[in-house]
Amino acid sequence: MGKTYIAGIDIGGTGTKIGLVDEKGNIVSQATMPTNCATTAKEFVETVWNKTVGLAGNLTISGIGIGAPNGNYYNGCIENAPNLPWRGRIELSRMFSEVSGLRAIVTNDANAAAMGEMKFGGAKGLDHFIYITLGTGVGSGIVSGGKMIYGHDGMAGELGHTIVVPGGRSCGCGRRGCLEMYASVRGIVFTMNELMQDNPEVSALETTENLQSKHIYQAAVNGDKLALQAFDITASVLGIALANAVAFSSPSHIFIFGGLANSGDILMQPLRRYFEENLLNVYQNKVCIEPSLLPDSDAAILGAAALALDEL
Amino acid sequence: MGKTYIAGIDIGGTGTKIGLVDEKGNIVSQATMPTNCATTAKEFVETVWNKTVGLAGNLTISGIGIGAPNGNYYNGCIENAPNLPWRGRIELSRMFSEVSGLRAIVTNDANAAAMGEMKFGGAKGLDHFIYITLGTGVGSGIVSGGKMIYGHDGMAGELGHTIVVPGGRSCGCGRRGCLEMYASVRGIVFTMNELMQDNPEVSALETTENLQSKHIYQAAVNGDKLALQAFDITASVLGIALANAVAFSSPSHIFIFGGLANSGDILMQPLRRYFEENLLNVYQNKVCIEPSLLPDSDAAILGAAALALDEL
Repeated sequence: MGKTYIAGIDIGGTGTKIGLVDEKGNIVSQATMPTNCATTAKEFVETVWNKTVGLAGNLTISGIGIGAPNGNYYNGCIENAPNLPWRGRIELSRMFSEVSGLRAIVTNDANAAAMGEMKFGGAKGLDHFIYITLGTGVGSGIVSGGKMIYGHDGMAGELGHTIVVPGGRSCGCGRRGCLEMYASVRGIVFTMNELMQDNPEVSALETTENLQSKHIYQAAVNGDKLALQAFDITASVLGIALANAVAFSSPSHIFIFGGLANSGDILMQPLRRYFEENLLNVYQNKVCIEPSLLPDSDAAILGAAALALDEL
Repeated sequence: MGKTYIAGIDIGGTGTKIGLVDEKGNIVSQATMPTNCATTAKEFVETVWNKTVGLAGNLTISGIGIGAPNGNYYNGCIENAPNLPWRGRIELSRMFSEVSGLRAIVTNDANAAAMGEMKFGGAKGLDHFIYITLGTGVGSGIVSGGKMIYGHDGMAGELGHTIVVPGGRSCGCGRRGCLEMYASVRGIVFTMNELMQDNPEVSALETTENLQSKHIYQAAVNGDKLALQAFDITASVLGIALANAVAFSSPSHIFIFGGLANSGDILMQPLRRYFEENLLNVYQNKVCIEPSLLPDSDAAILGAAALALDEL
């Protein structure tokens, strides 16, 4: 049998990434294209597949893994993903199988990334861990007994939408106090703006529409008090949410990925402190919180590929 | 092969229940004895096993299932259970095996009860559900993909100690705002006392040391405004906690058991409303919240037996 390559496809709101991945997690070839490159989902799938075949050249592709917002592992569909150009239920898995003749497996982007961490990253050999992405939103994948928790309908693992501050900030989901409104890159900007309004002229930063989490990070690195406080508040809310998650599935590790996870000790130090403070005693000093070992740019492709590798 | 009987043993702070259970969940014989009936754990195990053999008469016992506070499925031990007479680590599974020559399986009481619900109660045939006990404390068992979630150390499923009211009521565990302080039989008494202090002479009840949840229930049934409000507050906190739990494992059902669960619509009606209000839209109108179908008095024995049946 020749070498096995998997097409890992990561469908995002703006761009779609395609990578050919070998069994060891090496990306041998990759490309990016705009997600709105076609008018219908069917045309999109054909365009992506043609691109994938071109990337492969004379390599043999043995399966397809797809990560997408609202992707459902059980039925291979995405449904009403708010950031994607197609409305209603899109049968991604069926469409990719038809155009390629291969098995195509779908899951949501955070679950895919968690699979990538398990197959190729810091979670290799771990059976019980939680993976959480702190990007524009907050997503998560929960692995227990070596298996991804999908739930009865494939929709498990939405820690970003657990309510951690009852009656708190309004979330895009229509409720209040979701973790995502505090621990995402948007959340920390919100926190920083609140702090600057309450404490004018304390920070070197200014409240503008262009304020981004990277500016807050840079200011914190430079010792800006309010920026450090913004990270502290973020860590305190995330610390409670992760401690609550531990009471659920008692993982040995928690991996943090994406935008805010790249802040290093500025986030991790207060996070580990608040996390331990909020853990029930039976869990204390047992759970490692670590940044993901996968590079930001490749994690989604590797994750999508890991998903397919796991099943083939 | 003759009929199989399992010894289901439920070790509680006051009493220990023993039952002989057949494969269909019939308790053919049972007994109760005080948990402090012996000075050492070893003597306790011998006493319980002698009693069990006496109960069995000429029936053949093929295995032992044990539910106990802080019981650990992986290592068969209980460790520092605050309400049991023995300190440190007690190797229950090994002790019962030695005295009986049979396999003995241990888990915590709430996990055992969840197994009972799955084998003999309302969760028959369900692969994804959450079981929560609203008694003196709040315990839980989480089943995903047909398997109990034990976590890396056997300690998963402590929903009673998720923090739902940050900075809220002081809990016996040393932290603040745990679900247990609101949604247990002690929690609702606390809530009722708070309400009566803030609204003197509105309720027919009075703040005494003897106020119990059953009095609040009876007052609520009779239309007492504050008692109804106490149930409403309990339901609102529990509704958030259960909605957050759904975002974790996306179960099809949630089963509620114990003290407060026997309050019927007085609790279930506001609970279902708050639960739906706090669910992320993808989960709405999909998850059934139901009272347990197992009788209070037998659930623990049946659960312990179900645990052993599942493994033998």
